[in-house]
Amino acid sequence: MKLGGYGEDRLVAELTRGLPRGGDVRVGPGDDCAVIGRPRDARWQLLKADVVVEGVHFLASDDPRRVGWKALCRAISDIAAMGGEPAHALVTIAVSADEEVARVEAIYAGLKRAAKRFGVSIVGGETSRSPGPLFLDIALTGWVARTRCILRSGGRPGDALYVTGRLGGSRAGKHLDFIPRLAEARWLAGHFRPSAMMDLSDGLAADLPRLARASACDFLLEEDHVPRRSGATLAQAFSDGEDFELLFTLPARKAAALQLAWRKKFPRLPLTRIGELTARSTLTPPPSARGHDHFA
Amino acid sequence: MKLGGYGEDRLVAELTRGLPRGGDVRVGPGDDCAVIGRPRDARWQLLKADVVVEGVHFLASDDPRRVGWKALCRAISDIAAMGGEPAHALVTIAVSADEEVARVEAIYAGLKRAAKRFGVSIVGGETSRSPGPLFLDIALTGWVARTRCILRSGGRPGDALYVTGRLGGSRAGKHLDFIPRLAEARWLAGHFRPSAMMDLSDGLAADLPRLARASACDFLLEEDHVPRRSGATLAQAFSDGEDFELLFTLPARKAAALQLAWRKKFPRLPLTRIGELTARSTLTPPPSARGHDHFA
Repeated sequence: MKLGGYGEDRLVAELTRGLPRGGDVRVGPGDDCAVIGRPRDARWQLLKADVVVEGVHFLASDDPRRVGWKALCRAISDIAAMGGEPAHALVTIAVSADEEVARVEAIYAGLKRAAKRFGVSIVGGETSRSPGPLFLDIALTGWVARTRCILRSGGRPGDALYVTGRLGGSRAGKHLDFIPRLAEARWLAGHFRPSAMMDLSDGLAADLPRLARASACDFLLEEDHVPRRSGATLAQAFSDGEDFELLFTLPARKAAALQLAWRKKFPRLPLTRIGELTARSTLTPPPSARGHDHFA
Repeated sequence: MKLGGYGEDRLVAELTRGLPRGGDVRVGPGDDCAVIGRPRDARWQLLKADVVVEGVHFLASDDPRRVGWKALCRAISDIAAMGGEPAHALVTIAVSADEEVARVEAIYAGLKRAAKRFGVSIVGGETSRSPGPLFLDIALTGWVARTRCILRSGGRPGDALYVTGRLGGSRAGKHLDFIPRLAEARWLAGHFRPSAMMDLSDGLAADLPRLARASACDFLLEEDHVPRRSGATLAQAFSDGEDFELLFTLPARKAAALQLAWRKKFPRLPLTRIGELTARSTLTPPPSARGHDHFA
């Protein structure tokens, strides 16, 4: 059977079954990051790998500085989604021997700019020849206070469902320039402790069911509340992917206080309540609204 | 300028200049692993990323189980070369949508086998589509007691130069099945504390000058002492690469005790003294004996 018809979530579930796992692994595959530490440690380590491939996540004609920025910021967005802070990055780049040195240097310039902005130390990496497209993989460590670590799995029926920013249309350029919601996620984890959180990388239609499934819930989505980028259709807001906004849940009783505090703290970034988690087996998204499957 | 004529070491030096670097980075790019921790911490964290690319590090026709084994064992070999123990791995795989699910599962079977054997927890990863060859990148964390952390840079003029095993000819198959020298390196770090150590991945002719340069030394190589695999020429022992043996240095006064203790502890693995470090500017290897440059 070919990967193309298999489904990415199914493949990952298949591959990660029966993985060897030590006693210090708090969370393994399936959340935004792996979480490592002993149950009572004051802080836990977060680990994330994230890859961009030429022709899939960016084009050969894209500005290489923006490609470098994007690659590191994708991984930072995952650390943010756990409530954490990024720390150390390893950069793997595989590139044709015919490539211009200047292009690789420009990718690194973008990586360095993102690293400086978000407090990341680039501590090593690997260069290899590629007989095909350029491949840029980031491994990123981070830290989170144990009491502020937010998983996908903590949502409960009745929790309100929120999204930051506006969705859809990221391919027009935002996917290369986005700002990971690091400050927002840390503030949320410190002040409102979302019950569940993740970053939107494959589109709401793919990612929301993942969060609900991890929380053993279904969800009710108020489609006309989904905040769209200017010009984006609802289908695009559902399925374009690479929004890199936060999707999170919160007990409904905290909703009013959150919205007030958010508007003061982040007046320029919309925060929108788009629905709620429900007990299992009520509504599921229409089949037309699918998110991004890397092998589809 | 194209990468192909630029030289891998020069490229890496260029790219890693001026990287943002926090106060907890003990060793950044340039050694087998990055080393993270405060100066007086009892143990430091090791970080390593290592990639294998189809058509470069393995062939499409190679047994995918052995490809998975190789990918993880390469990174384990780097952790070993610092005197450390591996801990947690992230696996990034980029693969064509036309690929068979069974091949990816077999790669994972090889990864799992290596992880179980060497005590590694695979805690996450990333799957992506590749419009070209299969890429398999491993990010691996590890730990080393601060007092047993061995860098490339600690060698001194007069130190004896050792290599484990036999070199050359790895492409005939050993490169897919090698055993990283984890037990040997930990024993060395605990009992003899090598002044400098690294693993041989690009061939002695490329790697020995790197160790000497990091230690601000030159070296004297006794070419006829270099242990060769059965059938390998001296040139192959110098330049084939992917030996994944340990290269290390030790004060000459410890040499007799080391060789006695080694023969008792590891009777089936040769340990060979192949030369010594010297003060700067004596001998350098002949230009014919170059190691593997990924872009050459």
